[in-house]
Amino acid sequence: MTRSQDVPTLVAKAREGDPRSVARLISLVENGDPALPEVAAAMAPYTGRAQVIGLTGAPGVGKSTTTNELVRVLREQGARVGVLAVDPSSPFSGGAILGDRVRMTEHTADSGVYIRSMSSRGQLGGLSAATPQAVRVLEGAGCDVILVETVGVGQAEVEIASLADTTLVLLAPGMGDAIQAVKAGVLEIADVFVINKADRPGADATYRDIQGMLALGERASGDWRPQVVRAVAAKGEGVDDVVAAISKHRDWLESSGNLRTRREQRAAAEVSALALGRLRARMGDLREGTALSSLAAQVAAGDLDPYAAADRLLAGLEVS
Amino acid sequence: MTRSQDVPTLVAKAREGDPRSVARLISLVENGDPALPEVAAAMAPYTGRAQVIGLTGAPGVGKSTTTNELVRVLREQGARVGVLAVDPSSPFSGGAILGDRVRMTEHTADSGVYIRSMSSRGQLGGLSAATPQAVRVLEGAGCDVILVETVGVGQAEVEIASLADTTLVLLAPGMGDAIQAVKAGVLEIADVFVINKADRPGADATYRDIQGMLALGERASGDWRPQVVRAVAAKGEGVDDVVAAISKHRDWLESSGNLRTRREQRAAAEVSALALGRLRARMGDLREGTALSSLAAQVAAGDLDPYAAADRLLAGLEVS
Repeated sequence: MTRSQDVPTLVAKAREGDPRSVARLISLVENGDPALPEVAAAMAPYTGRAQVIGLTGAPGVGKSTTTNELVRVLREQGARVGVLAVDPSSPFSGGAILGDRVRMTEHTADSGVYIRSMSSRGQLGGLSAATPQAVRVLEGAGCDVILVETVGVGQAEVEIASLADTTLVLLAPGMGDAIQAVKAGVLEIADVFVINKADRPGADATYRDIQGMLALGERASGDWRPQVVRAVAAKGEGVDDVVAAISKHRDWLESSGNLRTRREQRAAAEVSALALGRLRARMGDLREGTALSSLAAQVAAGDLDPYAAADRLLAGLEVS
Repeated sequence: MTRSQDVPTLVAKAREGDPRSVARLISLVENGDPALPEVAAAMAPYTGRAQVIGLTGAPGVGKSTTTNELVRVLREQGARVGVLAVDPSSPFSGGAILGDRVRMTEHTADSGVYIRSMSSRGQLGGLSAATPQAVRVLEGAGCDVILVETVGVGQAEVEIASLADTTLVLLAPGMGDAIQAVKAGVLEIADVFVINKADRPGADATYRDIQGMLALGERASGDWRPQVVRAVAAKGEGVDDVVAAISKHRDWLESSGNLRTRREQRAAAEVSALALGRLRARMGDLREGTALSSLAAQVAAGDLDPYAAADRLLAGLEVS
C-alpha cells in the first residue's frame, strides 16, 4: 500500500518522464493498490493521446522479438514508446517469469522507452482490469505509442487485444494449421496479421490460408480488411511493413470514426471490469469465511446443487 | 428456452443412457438455459461418481488425437467415457468450430462414449461456469470417466484444468522452450505431463527440461510428483502408459485424502463462478441501458476516471 500523499508526487514526476515514478505507478496498478482510484483520477485528463497496439500470438511465434523490433523502428521515427508485456503467469506463484524482460534489455538504457512486464496474479479478469490502468499511466507519462504484448491466444488474451486501437496477431509457419487460428478467435480480433519467421518452410501456405479465410469473411464496404504482412523479426526484415500496416490502420480508424467508437467500447469494458473486480473482491471476502466452504462441501457430497448454493452465497453479498 | 416440464423427462432418459437426452441437457448448459438450476438439482445426487480428467496443451500438440486414443484404451477397459471438448471459440461468432468433433468420429457410433464440443459463447468465465455443469450431466448419465479437453494453456484453460481430478498437460518437441511452459503456468497444474510426438527430434530435450524443472520445485513428502510420459498418440504408442499414470494419480488422490479436498475446492470454484455469472448477467442488463455507454464516453474523453465510473455503475446494480 502507498501512502496517499505520495500519489500526487509520483504522478507529477511521471508526467515529467521520470522512469522510476512510472514504474512505481504501474506497480500500484499491478498490485491493485488502494490508491489506484486516485492515480486514475490524476491521469484521466491525459487519456486518449497515445496509440495503443495489441500484439498477441501463440507461444513461440516470436512476440518478444517482434516487439523489440517494433520498438526500434518506432524509436527511429521519434516516438516515445511504452511496452507492457502482459503475462498470464502462474495462478499459484503470483509472479511474472522474467523471460520477456530479459529478452528486451536492448532498449532498457533508452530513456524514450518504458518496458514493463505485468502478471495477472492468477485472477481471472485481473489482466483486463489492470492493463488499461497501466496504459493510462504510460499515456500520462507521455508515451506516443503503447505496445501491449500478451502471451497466447486464449479467451483472456482476446479480451486484452480488444483493449487496443490496433491488434496485431502473430503467426508462424508450422505452429498449427489455419483451423486452429480460427478456433482461438484470432481471425476476428486481428487488424494486422504478421506471419513471422517467414523464411521458414510453410510460410507461403500460412499466408494463403489466412488470405483465403479473410476472403471468406463477410465485410461491409468501408470496413477494414485485415492486412497480412510477412516478417523475419529476428533479422529485422519486414518490420517496416508492419509499422506501415499499423499506420494505415490508424488512418482508417480516424477517417472512419472507428477510433472514437473503439475507445468508447474500450472504456465501457474497462469500467465493467473494474465494477466486476469490486464485486469479485467482496466475493473473495466471503470465500475467506466459512460460508463458501460449507456450501462447497455440501455440493461435493451431492447434498446441494451448485445453483442453490450460489443463491445462498449471493444472499450474503452486499453490493454497496 | 426449454419448457420446465421437459426437464424431468430429459433427466430420466439421460439416466437411462439415452444419448439424445444427454446431448439436449448439455445444450441447455451451453446456452445458459433458465431451466439449468432444475437440471442441476436433479443431477446433484449422482455427483462425484466419475473420474474427471483434464487435458490441455498448446494448439498443435495433438490433444484431439491423444483424447481419441485415451477413449479407445478406456473403452477396452470397459469404462463408459464422456468427452467434453471445450473450445474457447470466437467471442464474436458464438459458435464452436467443428474441428474436434470432426476428428473424433471414430467413436461416435459407440454407445459407451459421449462426445461433445462446447463453446464459451465469448463470455469470459463462461466456460468455468458451464464445464462443471456439463460434467454433472455426464456423471448423471453414467459415465465412469470424463475427459475435458481444452484448447491452449491460457488463464481460462488453467482454471478449467483445475476443475479436474487429474490434469494432463500435453507438450510436443519444438513447440516452444521450457520457459514458455512455465510462463503459461502449466507446471503447477499438471499431474501428468505427456510428451506427445515423442518420435520427433527434441523429445529427449523436452523430457529432460521438464524433469529438470520438476526437480527444482519444492515438494513436501507425501506430495504428488508429476509423472512425465512419452507418447506418440497418432500411432497409439505410450497411451497405456498415460492411462497407467492417471490410475496411479487416482490411487494417490484417494489414499492421501486429496480427492475429497480437490472436489470441495472444485465445488467452491463452481459455486463462485455461478454467483459471479449471475452478477455479470445483471451487469449486462445495465450495459444494454444508457448508463454504461454514457459513463464510457466520459471516460474515453478523459472527463471521468474509470474507478469513479465503476462506482456509479455499481450504485445502479441490485444484487438480490
